[in-house]
Amino acid sequence: MQKLKVSIIGSTGYAGKELVKILIHHKEVELVHLVSSSCAGKNMAEIFPDFLNKLDKKLVSYNLDIVSQDSDMVFTALPHTVSMEITPALLEKGVKVVDLSADYRIKDSAVYQEWYKKELNQMSKELLLEAVYGLPEIYLDKIKNASLVANPGCYPTSVILGIAPLLKYHFVEPDGIIIDSKSGTSGAGRKLSSSLQFAECNENFKAYNIIKHNHIPEIEQELSSIYFNENNHKQKQQETEIKVSFTPHLLPINRGILSTCYLDLRGSKKEEEVLEIYQKYYQKAPFVRIFNPPNFPEIKFVTGTNYCDIGFGIDKRVGKIKVISVIDNLLKGAAGQAVQNMNIMSGFPETCGLV
Amino acid sequence: MQKLKVSIIGSTGYAGKELVKILIHHKEVELVHLVSSSCAGKNMAEIFPDFLNKLDKKLVSYNLDIVSQDSDMVFTALPHTVSMEITPALLEKGVKVVDLSADYRIKDSAVYQEWYKKELNQMSKELLLEAVYGLPEIYLDKIKNASLVANPGCYPTSVILGIAPLLKYHFVEPDGIIIDSKSGTSGAGRKLSSSLQFAECNENFKAYNIIKHNHIPEIEQELSSIYFNENNHKQKQQETEIKVSFTPHLLPINRGILSTCYLDLRGSKKEEEVLEIYQKYYQKAPFVRIFNPPNFPEIKFVTGTNYCDIGFGIDKRVGKIKVISVIDNLLKGAAGQAVQNMNIMSGFPETCGLV
Amino acid sequence: MQKLKVSIIGSTGYAGKELVKILIHHKEVELVHLVSSSCAGKNMAEIFPDFLNKLDKKLVSYNLDIVSQDSDMVFTALPHTVSMEITPALLEKGVKVVDLSADYRIKDSAVYQEWYKKELNQMSKELLLEAVYGLPEIYLDKIKNASLVANPGCYPTSVILGIAPLLKYHFVEPDGIIIDSKSGTSGAGRKLSSSLQFAECNENFKAYNIIKHNHIPEIEQELSSIYFNENNHKQKQQETEIKVSFTPHLLPINRGILSTCYLDLRGSKKEEEVLEIYQKYYQKAPFVRIFNPPNFPEIKFVTGTNYCDIGFGIDKRVGKIKVISVIDNLLKGAAGQAVQNMNIMSGFPETCGLV
Amino acid sequence: MQKLKVSIIGSTGYAGKELVKILIHHKEVELVHLVSSSCAGKNMAEIFPDFLNKLDKKLVSYNLDIVSQDSDMVFTALPHTVSMEITPALLEKGVKVVDLSADYRIKDSAVYQEWYKKELNQMSKELLLEAVYGLPEIYLDKIKNASLVANPGCYPTSVILGIAPLLKYHFVEPDGIIIDSKSGTSGAGRKLSSSLQFAECNENFKAYNIIKHNHIPEIEQELSSIYFNENNHKQKQQETEIKVSFTPHLLPINRGILSTCYLDLRGSKKEEEVLEIYQKYYQKAPFVRIFNPPNFPEIKFVTGTNYCDIGFGIDKRVGKIKVISVIDNLLKGAAGQAVQNMNIMSGFPETCGLV
Repeated sequence: MQKLKVSIIGSTGYAGKELVKILIHHKEVELVHLVSSSCAGKNMAEIFPDFLNKLDKKLVSYNLDIVSQDSDMVFTALPHTVSMEITPALLEKGVKVVDLSADYRIKDSAVYQEWYKKELNQMSKELLLEAVYGLPEIYLDKIKNASLVANPGCYPTSVILGIAPLLKYHFVEPDGIIIDSKSGTSGAGRKLSSSLQFAECNENFKAYNIIKHNHIPEIEQELSSIYFNENNHKQKQQETEIKVSFTPHLLPINRGILSTCYLDLRGSKKEEEVLEIYQKYYQKAPFVRIFNPPNFPEIKFVTGTNYCDIGFGIDKRVGKIKVISVIDNLLKGAAGQAVQNMNIMSGFPETCGLV
Repeated sequence: MQKLKVSIIGSTGYAGKELVKILIHHKEVELVHLVSSSCAGKNMAEIFPDFLNKLDKKLVSYNLDIVSQDSDMVFTALPHTVSMEITPALLEKGVKVVDLSADYRIKDSAVYQEWYKKELNQMSKELLLEAVYGLPEIYLDKIKNASLVANPGCYPTSVILGIAPLLKYHFVEPDGIIIDSKSGTSGAGRKLSSSLQFAECNENFKAYNIIKHNHIPEIEQELSSIYFNENNHKQKQQETEIKVSFTPHLLPINRGILSTCYLDLRGSKKEEEVLEIYQKYYQKAPFVRIFNPPNFPEIKFVTGTNYCDIGFGIDKRVGKIKVISVIDNLLKGAAGQAVQNMNIMSGFPETCGLV
Repeated sequence: MQKLKVSIIGSTGYAGKELVKILIHHKEVELVHLVSSSCAGKNMAEIFPDFLNKLDKKLVSYNLDIVSQDSDMVFTALPHTVSMEITPALLEKGVKVVDLSADYRIKDSAVYQEWYKKELNQMSKELLLEAVYGLPEIYLDKIKNASLVANPGCYPTSVILGIAPLLKYHFVEPDGIIIDSKSGTSGAGRKLSSSLQFAECNENFKAYNIIKHNHIPEIEQELSSIYFNENNHKQKQQETEIKVSFTPHLLPINRGILSTCYLDLRGSKKEEEVLEIYQKYYQKAPFVRIFNPPNFPEIKFVTGTNYCDIGFGIDKRVGKIKVISVIDNLLKGAAGQAVQNMNIMSGFPETCGLV
Repeated sequence: MQKLKVSIIGSTGYAGKELVKILIHHKEVELVHLVSSSCAGKNMAEIFPDFLNKLDKKLVSYNLDIVSQDSDMVFTALPHTVSMEITPALLEKGVKVVDLSADYRIKDSAVYQEWYKKELNQMSKELLLEAVYGLPEIYLDKIKNASLVANPGCYPTSVILGIAPLLKYHFVEPDGIIIDSKSGTSGAGRKLSSSLQFAECNENFKAYNIIKHNHIPEIEQELSSIYFNENNHKQKQQETEIKVSFTPHLLPINRGILSTCYLDLRGSKKEEEVLEIYQKYYQKAPFVRIFNPPNFPEIKFVTGTNYCDIGFGIDKRVGKIKVISVIDNLLKGAAGQAVQNMNIMSGFPETCGLV
């Protein structure tokens, strides 16, 4: 059987590198072009010696015609606002795209502009109608038929998966949700930054983007959609939308996100009832693992995997439920989820290459 | 002038060791007895070679008569429920005590029993009336005249200092307070534990004691007292008390706590107004540093110091205020604060030996 | 085709756990019994939640009859001197054994006794004649036909692979070899130790067992054998043997060994000549990667893999060659190499399950 | 008594920052100008919030006239080859200088040029005659009267102090010395570097500058001088000089150096004899601590201090002595030693401000 021909644009960022690592062992995939603007001409193993003996492939500059002609599917692992310059033309050429940037995640382009401080170009605005938010545990059927999948952000993946069942079944109030998230440093990408130098991060811990982080609109859009049971993302009146309080923190570790979520429980639900809705909601989700109370996941349980592990507990004293959700930010939070989406779009088993 | 004669019981735990480190440079203090049940007979520098050339002193077994006769003040750096066996007799002998355990922090002995799963002995129950909660920024005057100071827990110190002004001036609702705290591993003490082995903590992050942590009653007692403006800790009716949702997490660093607190802001307060009450509340507090918005503290700013650094920001979208507070858990969260209390009890400058 | 039935004795140590992780994805293997004396009766995923959804298998107590009847091959991942109590009986029952302890690595039982401070039992002494030292890059043919493979130590693997070609081709003096090795903490195993608590290792670095480490006789035995071109390990006169100066150090990382080796170069060899003998020596070794000067490997290049990466440079000023060799101590230094040996003993492709 | 007026040029590098931290508590010193080309105009506490409440001082641009007029002593904490542009003029103005760069450490300007790839300017060449190598344990008397002290490099400090007594008393062969050093990342300074980003260093370990590191000539110059008992640094014939094999490595910690040194012992010296010469050599050195065999120092024993801790052991099997020496690279390896030199030059107690 013929393999799926895949190219990656942005192959030397952290997410791009993880994509390459996964795909060289994916039995249904042939890696065609590895595009890197900064390292074109060099071999992947020159940049990352861990690829020695595993992959002998030169990085190339981007050429739309060549990439689109040779590829069935393209992963765009580019910074926000860069992807929108490239993605529309690829789709026009008939290539399917999984976009790891934020450019097609926000259904309301005005909201995108408000949080990302840049306007989407016209073609990209039109693409919002057909782009599918690539969270397979929620949008499995839509992803199957999608040409453009907007791969979710790392924080949103951990948060939405963590509390979706509670909102879906209206076990909690939609107001007053608090999300306290902690991420390893690879979440910030490979670009140089003084605040990411070893001696700055090590033996340190801090919050950042404390009042405004651009993953907030993505989280709110999806939580609102789940709670209000919308079948399609139409523009809603502001007053009906869920708003969350979200604070990201920087952990002195390489990989992993842990999100601690606090919600107001409705009525006097018991832990068994909560467990039941989680198990029901995720019964067909191969990458979500629900922990039985009083057990909770730790980051190391998912490091290097595509799992999202979820635990919860009811704090009766204050009438709240606490949910703890962990992922590997580079896998379920980026490259792993992107391959999961590719598998679904291509009719491969959802877990292919990921376990 | 004669120096204050000081002994330490529990000299080889993390807090005890920090006490020794501070006191060997404290110009008003003469270290008399270093008590350690596990290491009696050995020199401090045999256990901790960093004391070589700095301190030539043998650790001794505990003897009430010798310790009380030779000491003006004793630090008890012992586990919960061990201190209560030792402290009453020391006080009876006329020695002042700064107790670093939890045994004298909770004014209501029934609450202590509920959370610590052990009953206070009768003498200790009686001591609760005279024990002063040793948070100098709040109880300065009481500490001056105290014979027994209950040195606060590390998490409570970071939390209470972080949000006291908001509660004092009723800028926030007393309900629905969320506290998400993260601590370095030294907070767990020096006792062996498989969950504290390097390969378990490193490259990992987790929450623990997620529903019940025994620092909660201490936090709630003090926040309630501040909000309801009580002059003395009398037993209150349960319905009037503040209850918080508190989650501690374990950071892969040696020292430091960062607490992220979420509170509902009353009315439409501006950041300048908030800044003003913080500055007013802490105007005489030499170890509290308030950050001007939009700046926030990081753990490394306070590592190795007795400072508590506090930053805040208003999240208008959801009507909440976020407060971030950092301390070194072994200093402002334990030994540093204990010496600060000793200074106040002894009429020394509050910062002596601590800057 | 029928799968190889494999059991593991000592499944919950670090090496045992890695064996399980590898073998659940090994397409030629059926995992039969997971033996653990300390955790019998529990499910593997209860001890290590990272196995959730991956492996549903109970740990069992050791029973010779059951294990030997049900297994074609057994991995003994036990402490030194424990393995010798179990291994002879397994072999007698016709089961092949890969032993991860040190018990069958040292050909001269008097040397074993001197360094390990315990005498081998009689049956084990006899087994020394048939035990094969399981370094596939050197003993490939012997391993193919072995019933008992003594899986090499982690430090010896990094050192022997690092400098074998230099000794084989007599490019260096056999005297005065210095080996300065650094290992992550998982090398010390999962047993509780105060020196392995997070707050002791983190932000620290130290040498240990500085004058005598029990990996020395293993290193010297193999280097001597290579240099003196022995076909079999006969007892040699002491004066002809290679002796090395070896110092292990403890790195504040979870996994990985880097060995820096210093040898006196004979004659005026050039780097190209050295490169040539390394490439020749390892031309059929799928897990050794030789770096072209002036490149050198780092630990992270091999973390999570079964590779041994080697780089070298000639320091003309002093007539020495420096060799740097890195492995993942739990894979090429333990479980990965054990599976590599199993593959060779069973006629599977050498890399099966390992890439 | 009037305080010594001190300025620092290069106040925001890691060494400069440590100088400020030490000097604000030094009772004999008044900090006059904090020069920083990159941050002039900002307050020190804006750059480093840990100085809040401790130091309220603006950083300024460099002005020779102002600095030299207002200062008795200047620390130049500048990169190699930058210091030589500034130091001669300061000395001409009558200011004493402790230079933390390498520019005045190498007595033979041709050697400097060979290793640093830049020529010293003429005035600096002339200054080599009067510059004193600032290792107080060896050059105490010269430092007392020096106007220009060349503060030693971090690696050389650990190495020279570690093995000086062995060379001085000819207990070892001068040939074949191997030095394997490991340093925390702060040794590389505050400049941005992709190889120093957290995700590159963390969970990693590597050697660097493996064949040529520019601390080698400094180490060899001093070891030769000690061994050949030279009173002054005259140019020697190459064949009589000590040459070492030196390899630096990068540890995933913030601070600290550990050097493992291997030397050939002459005759059949016993450990007590070695201990005796170490104790004799360092009897007046307040910052050197010799460990009794079989004890060895660890990096954490000296973190945050100006100590150099030294341990040794004789490996009779191979006739070698192993010496392990640890320092805090930013203190005894830079700022602490610089203040120690200042104390000596100014007639203050050698330990003032450093314990």
